[in-house]
Amino acid sequence: MESLPKVVKRRVNALKNLQVKCAHIEAKFYEEVHELERKYAALYQPLFDKRSDIVKAAYEPTDEECEWKADEEEELTDEMKEKAKLEEEKKDEEKEDPKGIPEFWLTVFKNVDLLSDMLQEHDEPILKHLQDIKVKFSDPGQPMSFTLEFHFEPNDFFTNTVLTKTYKMRSEPDDTDPFSFDGPEIMCCTGCPIEWTKGKNVTLKTIKKKQKHKGRGTVRTVTKTVPNDSFFNFFTPPEVPENGELDEDSEAVLAADFEIGHFIRERIVPRAVLYFTGEAIEDDDDDYDEEGEEADDEEGEEEADEENDPDYDPKKEAAPPAECKQQ
Amino acid sequence: MESLPKVVKRRVNALKNLQVKCAHIEAKFYEEVHELERKYAALYQPLFDKRSDIVKAAYEPTDEECEWKADEEEELTDEMKEKAKLEEEKKDEEKEDPKGIPEFWLTVFKNVDLLSDMLQEHDEPILKHLQDIKVKFSDPGQPMSFTLEFHFEPNDFFTNTVLTKTYKMRSEPDDTDPFSFDGPEIMCCTGCPIEWTKGKNVTLKTIKKKQKHKGRGTVRTVTKTVPNDSFFNFFTPPEVPENGELDEDSEAVLAADFEIGHFIRERIVPRAVLYFTGEAIEDDDDDYDEEGEEADDEEGEEEADEENDPDYDPKKEAAPPAECKQQ
Repeated sequence: MESLPKVVKRRVNALKNLQVKCAHIEAKFYEEVHELERKYAALYQPLFDKRSDIVKAAYEPTDEECEWKADEEEELTDEMKEKAKLEEEKKDEEKEDPKGIPEFWLTVFKNVDLLSDMLQEHDEPILKHLQDIKVKFSDPGQPMSFTLEFHFEPNDFFTNTVLTKTYKMRSEPDDTDPFSFDGPEIMCCTGCPIEWTKGKNVTLKTIKKKQKHKGRGTVRTVTKTVPNDSFFNFFTPPEVPENGELDEDSEAVLAADFEIGHFIRERIVPRAVLYFTGEAIEDDDDDYDEEGEEADDEEGEEEADEENDPDYDPKKEAAPPAECKQQ
Repeated sequence: MESLPKVVKRRVNALKNLQVKCAHIEAKFYEEVHELERKYAALYQPLFDKRSDIVKAAYEPTDEECEWKADEEEELTDEMKEKAKLEEEKKDEEKEDPKGIPEFWLTVFKNVDLLSDMLQEHDEPILKHLQDIKVKFSDPGQPMSFTLEFHFEPNDFFTNTVLTKTYKMRSEPDDTDPFSFDGPEIMCCTGCPIEWTKGKNVTLKTIKKKQKHKGRGTVRTVTKTVPNDSFFNFFTPPEVPENGELDEDSEAVLAADFEIGHFIRERIVPRAVLYFTGEAIEDDDDDYDEEGEEADDEEGEEEADEENDPDYDPKKEAAPPAECKQQ
């Protein structure tokens, strides 16, 4: 820019002003995409409700609904089939008539790096009671936001049946930096209070501490309650002070929180069963190979991480030239 | 999956069948997004047309249109201002009244790694004549596709005024692998013939080769025409044979081609001026830092590359907790 003649610099400024106008049009585009997402959420919901009913044994699917073509295509010898059948019968005898799909959401959490990183051993018995995760969008005309609803069956840990986390978004260019606008951004999030049953709050732990009396020199043991690592801290994100300034730790926690919220909304809820079976991860890996990229071992590991990356572009269009025919 | 009791496996299959239905709903969603993109393309077009008019000196912007607030905010001492003014006057004297914004698109190409990688020295004099790049979407009801139009001013290199590249897309789940569906994919692309002026075709070069007569042993020099590296090979992508199978080289060329096509459509055309000035790259870097990620030198380099990454998610919502206030 500096080396340009003044008359040219002037014209470039005119282009930049046009670009600001583009950013404001783009903001309207994303608002309409959000409307579309709301519209489609209603179309997905009956399918998600059925999923939930099957998971929690409120509905037993018919044979037709359970027919999976890939199963038939697997070529097994009769001997292998017989062996598999015997093994299954044995397993069925061992476990006594499981209801629905036990530990469905807990398994999803364990299979996704981004979520399993938050999981502590003491969270697992609680998450066995998680029966559904729903995404609710803000009403039309309201500020853009979405709420994740975690639905639990009655349990010994807390009395809530639903835990919520709401993410407020902004879809407009910042006047002071309009060119950084790149679609809706999560701006803030709020959790919800958890009504823990006495002695069951896994987000706190008691530690014993010895105190020495300054004067008398006697020692006593005091019990102190301190924060404990837990997935359930997800429902008490760091508060942002009035001046908007956060310490480094809180900022990192919130940045990770926004990624997780975005990922649950965009990937986990829409395709939970694929994270339960692991197929969501395998499929993406296949894709990667087909693109003709050569991965050495080091890169291979990075790819695996990308599958759980919230920045993974669900709308990317660059694709491998599979089965493509010139027309 | 293997370790699950048979009755549970059955129910998981029911969920997978529901998931296939979700994929088909998702395909309809992306078709509607494409319609929205078409609608918004019409809203952007007057701004892009004005941009083109300014670039090619068909329109001289008014003082008001050229006022850029950031300029005023820069706090310069009077002395610095005076010096800058003198320098500019000197520059203006040196260059004689440049028209529009010279080499606008060539500069954009040079500033974007993905594009500059394709550029050869002999391409540059030709790309100085590039006056606009437009994106045209397929008509409603037609198979999904988009065309990049490269508009050139009359020049000595070829007689075409527009070079085109069309990308056909598919937005439906593949029956054999419905879970890999993740939005529209580019499936094929077609270029256009370039009517090169005699001797100006930079995509070919002549090499001289010595041949020895087998019988007589005499040596003669023959001239042979062979392909030459050039950006303009972009308009003759590898053809995909009937059976859809490509050799490794062609596959890599097409994979890169799809990335470039996608990137030109999604990033370059909508915000060309920011790639001209370099702001598109700087802004993204700023973002990265604000997210609280610590970059060491090595990562720093990678980030810079990401800016030109076509997989960069234009719809990502995870954002830094900037100026966030709890409500």
